[in-house]
Amino acid sequence: MSVLVVGSTALDSIKTQKAENPRLLGGSASHAAVAASFFSPVKLVGVVGKDFPQRYLQLYRRHRINLDGLQILPGKTFHWSGEYEANMNNRRTLLTELGVFETFSPALPTSHKKAPFVLLANIAPSLQHHVLDQMQEPKFIAADTMDLWLNIALPDLLKLLKRLDGFVLNDSEAHQLTKENNVFAALKKIHKLGPKYVVIKKGSQGSILSGPKGFFICPAYPLHNVVDPTGAGDSFVGGLMGYLATARGPVEAHIRRAMIYGSVVASFCCEGFGLLRTTKITRKQIEVRVKELERLTQF
Amino acid sequence: MSVLVVGSTALDSIKTQKAENPRLLGGSASHAAVAASFFSPVKLVGVVGKDFPQRYLQLYRRHRINLDGLQILPGKTFHWSGEYEANMNNRRTLLTELGVFETFSPALPTSHKKAPFVLLANIAPSLQHHVLDQMQEPKFIAADTMDLWLNIALPDLLKLLKRLDGFVLNDSEAHQLTKENNVFAALKKIHKLGPKYVVIKKGSQGSILSGPKGFFICPAYPLHNVVDPTGAGDSFVGGLMGYLATARGPVEAHIRRAMIYGSVVASFCCEGFGLLRTTKITRKQIEVRVKELERLTQF
Repeated sequence: MSVLVVGSTALDSIKTQKAENPRLLGGSASHAAVAASFFSPVKLVGVVGKDFPQRYLQLYRRHRINLDGLQILPGKTFHWSGEYEANMNNRRTLLTELGVFETFSPALPTSHKKAPFVLLANIAPSLQHHVLDQMQEPKFIAADTMDLWLNIALPDLLKLLKRLDGFVLNDSEAHQLTKENNVFAALKKIHKLGPKYVVIKKGSQGSILSGPKGFFICPAYPLHNVVDPTGAGDSFVGGLMGYLATARGPVEAHIRRAMIYGSVVASFCCEGFGLLRTTKITRKQIEVRVKELERLTQF
Repeated sequence: MSVLVVGSTALDSIKTQKAENPRLLGGSASHAAVAASFFSPVKLVGVVGKDFPQRYLQLYRRHRINLDGLQILPGKTFHWSGEYEANMNNRRTLLTELGVFETFSPALPTSHKKAPFVLLANIAPSLQHHVLDQMQEPKFIAADTMDLWLNIALPDLLKLLKRLDGFVLNDSEAHQLTKENNVFAALKKIHKLGPKYVVIKKGSQGSILSGPKGFFICPAYPLHNVVDPTGAGDSFVGGLMGYLATARGPVEAHIRRAMIYGSVVASFCCEGFGLLRTTKITRKQIEVRVKELERLTQF
């Protein structure tokens, strides 16, 4: 089944202690869509400016990502620039130019409205609502978010939570949302806000699922060298939703394995700048790491 | 088989945001010995002063811990006092009174010298060496350490690493020792310093084993409420060594499961001040959590 992915489509200029790469393909929707494309057909909903490089459109197409919902408008593509500290966890934003993203209003082609799996990647909650308003009985809706929306759009986000099946956020956002230091206490509180499934991402520490059948502790794939973690969280949720959309039967039966697939795609994402590594891998390479994660956690 | 445990035997006065408990039974050897006692016969090597409460000696005995190697000397028992921040991870030391610990020299009774499993719990590396000098062909030697020894006794510690089968340290100590931000890169460097097995403890994020057959990602048991994490790391390594000492055949075949048992005992430790919770649990309760960890990590 297909996955509709809405989120930001951007150009990322990324600086680490070792290298610098300008105007890479980035944005939450780009990372999530490419990650999901290894498993399922993907429909991308986003906006870029006339300056958006043709080669990035070709890259989406090579991943068989449907671009009918990608608006190309006069103006500049959203441009983000950031710099990582040596530990590769902390980063600071150097520049944010919204460009055509500032007035983005996702309008779904008719063919997109019946997508069974909907991934609302990180983007303003009002836009996430706007997409859901256009959908016709999706089977499973998941959303990601970021600290910015907790700060400036909390009422919108709280309303969104009541419309979701799954909600994905990182540990510091979970703390910010619930005021709980303990991640399991935070999960309990987030369920009360709406979502049946809650996933807390913890970067290199893996992730935790809380659902009707309890917790799942999902490991991160061991990496000796993190080149650039930008988009790893988006890749994780993209891989998760892409895998879920291929699995037959109830979500409950597949969501743990879906997280493992998400975790593996995220690991590849970290091994290159932007999408440079992710766009070079094969499904076979993903399967090898999934098998390794099985071995790494068995006792 | 029996486990010889050497380390600190102390009185801990612990303050959290919610409560305060003075002069609890504490110290690395106390926590490790009680944890190991659920699985194997334990021989404790340490020192206390004449002020050491009789009830704590009885508590050791209830856990069938052999006290022939526990010196009771004129003077005061080592007393540590610390306070935790609200997140229960950061703590600051309020007071350290070494007492009889200042001149401690572990002298092993003859019956102790042939213990097959040796746990050098956190204590000065020179004392860890001194214990090893007295041992007769132990089967498996593991040591824990702390940042203090990395700061003031690094040459001793580096010499010790060459005598160990297993080395246990936490993630910040691994970073301090190797200057590596990446935990897997750090593990590689630590192997080069001597130990065949290296375990990095990450508190509520679980732990990682690196050995001849690769990595094992060991989860922490999910806790909704951490009352006091003091001694959790010691409980972990104590449980690990206690379980290893009961398992037949090569260490390699059992060390992953041993870590799971260590992780479970550590989870109980965190649910009460000092040893208050750990000393009330049964082997059956441990088995229940081990089964739960199996369920929590399967996919």
